Amino acid sequence: MSEAPAPVAPPVAIVMGSQSDWPTMQRAAAMLDKLGVAYDARIVSAHRTPDRLVAFAKGAEAEGFKVIIAGAGGAAHLPGMVASMTHLPVLGVPVQSKALSGQDSLLSIVQMPAGIPVGTLAIGEAGAANAGLLAAAILSTGDAELAERLKTFRAEQSASVAERPS
Amino acid sequence: MSEAPAPVAPPVAIVMGSQSDWPTMQRAAAMLDKLGVAYDARIVSAHRTPDRLVAFAKGAEAEGFKVIIAGAGGAAHLPGMVASMTHLPVLGVPVQSKALSGQDSLLSIVQMPAGIPVGTLAIGEAGAANAGLLAAAILSTGDAELAERLKTFRAEQSASVAERPS
Amino acid sequence: MSEAPAPVAPPVAIVMGSQSDWPTMQRAAAMLDKLGVAYDARIVSAHRTPDRLVAFAKGAEAEGFKVIIAGAGGAAHLPGMVASMTHLPVLGVPVQSKALSGQDSLLSIVQMPAGIPVGTLAIGEAGAANAGLLAAAILSTGDAELAERLKTFRAEQSASVAERPS
Amino acid sequence: MSEAPAPVAPPVAIVMGSQSDWPTMQRAAAMLDKLGVAYDARIVSAHRTPDRLVAFAKGAEAEGFKVIIAGAGGAAHLPGMVASMTHLPVLGVPVQSKALSGQDSLLSIVQMPAGIPVGTLAIGEAGAANAGLLAAAILSTGDAELAERLKTFRAEQSASVAERPS
Amino acid sequence: MSEAPAPVAPPVAIVMGSQSDWPTMQRAAAMLDKLGVAYDARIVSAHRTPDRLVAFAKGAEAEGFKVIIAGAGGAAHLPGMVASMTHLPVLGVPVQSKALSGQDSLLSIVQMPAGIPVGTLAIGEAGAANAGLLAAAILSTGDAELAERLKTFRAEQSASVAERPS
Amino acid sequence: MSEAPAPVAPPVAIVMGSQSDWPTMQRAAAMLDKLGVAYDARIVSAHRTPDRLVAFAKGAEAEGFKVIIAGAGGAAHLPGMVASMTHLPVLGVPVQSKALSGQDSLLSIVQMPAGIPVGTLAIGEAGAANAGLLAAAILSTGDAELAERLKTFRAEQSASVAERPS
Amino acid sequence: MSEAPAPVAPPVAIVMGSQSDWPTMQRAAAMLDKLGVAYDARIVSAHRTPDRLVAFAKGAEAEGFKVIIAGAGGAAHLPGMVASMTHLPVLGVPVQSKALSGQDSLLSIVQMPAGIPVGTLAIGEAGAANAGLLAAAILSTGDAELAERLKTFRAEQSASVAERPS
Amino acid sequence: MSEAPAPVAPPVAIVMGSQSDWPTMQRAAAMLDKLGVAYDARIVSAHRTPDRLVAFAKGAEAEGFKVIIAGAGGAAHLPGMVASMTHLPVLGVPVQSKALSGQDSLLSIVQMPAGIPVGTLAIGEAGAANAGLLAAAILSTGDAELAERLKTFRAEQSASVAERPS
Repeated sequence: MSEAPAPVAPPVAIVMGSQSDWPTMQRAAAMLDKLGVAYDARIVSAHRTPDRLVAFAKGAEAEGFKVIIAGAGGAAHLPGMVASMTHLPVLGVPVQSKALSGQDSLLSIVQMPAGIPVGTLAIGEAGAANAGLLAAAILSTGDAELAERLKTFRAEQSASVAERPS
Repeated sequence: MSEAPAPVAPPVAIVMGSQSDWPTMQRAAAMLDKLGVAYDARIVSAHRTPDRLVAFAKGAEAEGFKVIIAGAGGAAHLPGMVASMTHLPVLGVPVQSKALSGQDSLLSIVQMPAGIPVGTLAIGEAGAANAGLLAAAILSTGDAELAERLKTFRAEQSASVAERPS
Repeated sequence: MSEAPAPVAPPVAIVMGSQSDWPTMQRAAAMLDKLGVAYDARIVSAHRTPDRLVAFAKGAEAEGFKVIIAGAGGAAHLPGMVASMTHLPVLGVPVQSKALSGQDSLLSIVQMPAGIPVGTLAIGEAGAANAGLLAAAILSTGDAELAERLKTFRAEQSASVAERPS
Repeated sequence: MSEAPAPVAPPVAIVMGSQSDWPTMQRAAAMLDKLGVAYDARIVSAHRTPDRLVAFAKGAEAEGFKVIIAGAGGAAHLPGMVASMTHLPVLGVPVQSKALSGQDSLLSIVQMPAGIPVGTLAIGEAGAANAGLLAAAILSTGDAELAERLKTFRAEQSASVAERPS
Repeated sequence: MSEAPAPVAPPVAIVMGSQSDWPTMQRAAAMLDKLGVAYDARIVSAHRTPDRLVAFAKGAEAEGFKVIIAGAGGAAHLPGMVASMTHLPVLGVPVQSKALSGQDSLLSIVQMPAGIPVGTLAIGEAGAANAGLLAAAILSTGDAELAERLKTFRAEQSASVAERPS
Repeated sequence: MSEAPAPVAPPVAIVMGSQSDWPTMQRAAAMLDKLGVAYDARIVSAHRTPDRLVAFAKGAEAEGFKVIIAGAGGAAHLPGMVASMTHLPVLGVPVQSKALSGQDSLLSIVQMPAGIPVGTLAIGEAGAANAGLLAAAILSTGDAELAERLKTFRAEQSASVAERPS
Repeated sequence: MSEAPAPVAPPVAIVMGSQSDWPTMQRAAAMLDKLGVAYDARIVSAHRTPDRLVAFAKGAEAEGFKVIIAGAGGAAHLPGMVASMTHLPVLGVPVQSKALSGQDSLLSIVQMPAGIPVGTLAIGEAGAANAGLLAAAILSTGDAELAERLKTFRAEQSASVAERPS
Repeated sequence: MSEAPAPVAPPVAIVMGSQSDWPTMQRAAAMLDKLGVAYDARIVSAHRTPDRLVAFAKGAEAEGFKVIIAGAGGAAHLPGMVASMTHLPVLGVPVQSKALSGQDSLLSIVQMPAGIPVGTLAIGEAGAANAGLLAAAILSTGDAELAERLKTFRAEQSASVAERPS
């Protein structure tokens, strides 16, 4: 009697510091959807839920994640703290903050000390979309079909640029 | 038969992200020495020793600490992460960083989201000295003798300012 | 014949540079309300009412205050000047300014010279809320009941964070 | 029996936050020397000697000062606080600070709220020299001889610029 | 047959780089109106009307001006260029610019080289109002009645600050 | 008769804009050496050798590279332009520049528009070392042995942090 | 039998990174229209259409262009990359970006290394208009009629500045 | 009887605000030397020699100049003021300043209002060298031989870039 195959865990985790980051981070999710990459989106606040942070970061590999996208704003500690507790590649998205427009978020994420890397993308929605793309690029180093989908996306993107402004 | 009194834990913890922060953070220690406040100085790297971070922050109250001074540079996550795991007052010192002169350290420490405060001092040695002073001021809310020593320090400081430049 | 007990002075003073800072500083008041800490909120302009500044800062201890929260914007001198005239712990809130979004307020408050500390919080409403929290944390070093309320607040805050964005 | 004439008070006060500001502020003194304007140079720390600050600022007019030059670095509150307690014109010199190169000093001095002006000069020695010049220009509105000396200085300055680099 | 007295020239010139600076610079005019100081407001564009700039700056003393207030935004050259062609005191107002919120205006005005001073006020309307106040303070060094009006203004300003926020 | 196995291409390319970037980028090379990951280091100037740039970026996949590390300073276009011509993951290292300390390098690299991602690391040597680490983390998503070496590196790094400053 | 004269290619190319830059870059087009200088406006995305970039930049001289205006925002690589592949003069316009208001665009365009120049104009619409003017000024070095039109434009511009604000 | 040909005026003027700018601006001169373009280098201080500024800018066309390179630091008004008085193309070089590393110079030069363009190069020596290159590129729009020399320079520059770091 055959058993159903074990469900395959999604390879990408999208974590964010609060519900208010979701409008930005949805851009990462939408990009992964477009490229056919499964993901799991969660709220993990480094400051308000430190236990959840530790559990998530330490358990990420066992959950089957291959790449982690982490978005946060202001004193944005989530990406770096996740990176401190996993060897998986971590991508950081600086969410645009109210007073400083994400300059604080960017510096808090990108200026990591030697030893614990966070691959940081642009401030805001462009950065979130690109985190999805970079996660797919990372996965495509071991997934030829995804690499093809990525190339197709890129070719279509190039083709979609009009020759002249209107 | 009388027992020896239990040793009293120092009320202030000084933690820093790396050995290289010590020349800055020694200014906090020196200020506490001057005011007769005991402290314990440790290296706790949010990024390189996250387990030590969790153990320290969660155990700080039980160890008997009343105030925590945390110094770090660059993407300085130590003060905010300690604050996320204790209700004790946490004071943050932005250590001057190489490329950005501590602007990254300052924003990473001070721009905490509502819910988890870090009382942030100035970049570098002045900030470290003032963290010592502010820790003493906090402790003096419940220690009249310390309050007197603090007032004396302040009076002597005022008196030491020359009337004219030379 | 028994006398009525002397009224207990509120332990926290909230001072601000102008009426226009109140929408921000109310967040500190609201947090103290939530934690059951009494406070007195006043307008003290370092620039327009220097005599009031001196009277307030020099008299703060005698009034019974234990912690002072001071908010101001632009060339924000109020927190530092209050700190120069009292040994009580002073917490500074940089109010978001019009042209520079509070970058001027932040630097004017946080970059105090060695000798006179101001524990600085984030720019704007998050910083004001956190000033309330930090004031409570400071008071809780000598008030076990307040410490319990603070822990409860923190636990509820953690519990209120949804697992997933929606 | 004739009395000796009362000594004439110098019209310019140069105050600075600490001895370490003197190498910068000497440039103001040197410029006033060159233009034949008397001055008195003092250390008045807004933070470490607030009583001296109040006494100086409130007494400046009675001492006979006409213009006040105030230099300070970091969270530079001296110029604005002096201005808050006198109606005399106050000129501010942002001293170059260690970590932020005087960006903090500049914003702390120049971003005064409506109602209390500080005429701010450039960061560092150029600003100090120009504070001397501007003080002289202010005094020359009521002193034709000084106006002539100022014009001569300006003409000589123009004449001293070589036609070609060498 | 008696002649009418020669009209007295206003002592303050308010010049600005363009019509679009007037909403800001009106605050200077309003302050001078309040203090009973006459002024003349003109558009002088350093870049679009350099001849007018030269004529104005070189002729300012002969026109009877005692103090010049100059406001401009972006690469704000008007205050410094006026100052280069007159020994009269020049006050600069950095008008808030579109992209950089007046940071460009501020640095373009305040960072003058040694030899040609511009007393710079805050970015935007507060700075314009304070330029009016500082011009009055400068004039009051030789006008006791104006000094009294200025003191009254200051006293009323202090008195108008409410004790508590509402 | 058996043939020798085809040489395996190194999986990581390290490219930099000029020889002067090598002292920084050597930190990436050293990290890859430590982790046993082969790499090829080349100078590819986006501005001075645009043909080399195109040839490299378009040929990178065919050469067998899996991840590209690109370092540049100032108007740092190399990482983004490489990314525009390959779907491989590109990591960017902002080299510290002379006048602006790498702030220009950082913004030029990280602020990529949606569609073309560059995973950006910290300014300078820490960023270069972390680019090596992140490249290894990316490769380890398909290389269990490398993942083990990475975990060992991380464990040793944690263990090497002294408990107390000295 | 006479042939029709070969159409003369427009001397100015206006290229921009995306359709969203056109509202800004139209200001360059409008200025060239006003001065009677023909141009061709195209979308050339350095990141999304690198092949188009190479074809445009390398073919620009052969197409008959004399001056190239390139506008882009964020990590704005278009002006510098065009300049890397042509010896024609390239003028760069930093388009105002969402999070950082064009500070990223400005630094990405202006901070070119020695060897490949981009003449950079102001952020946003003023910069675009001025790129049109500067392109005309460049062309007028070899076109006396255009020089006259430019002088007329400048004279009319000066004449249009009102004497007084209203 | 043949007359000697009239001497040809150099096509490029290099002006700078002070002798101290020459070490930077020499890089422009050196580049023009290398490309065989004659120039005249002069000191013209916008602030200290405004008459010289007016005379130079208004007379530049008559002197035979085709392109003007202007370098200055701090509140750098020279490039913009020259541009206000000539229709010739003006290139601006922000000289690195002491306190703000040329950020003030850059913004003072590049943020010109619509109507008066300055083509701005990078801060410091790279910008000066590129001003020389851009001036040559501008002249080469009407000088085929210079265009060839420029292409040769560019080809040699490309060829001089080593393949690998050493």
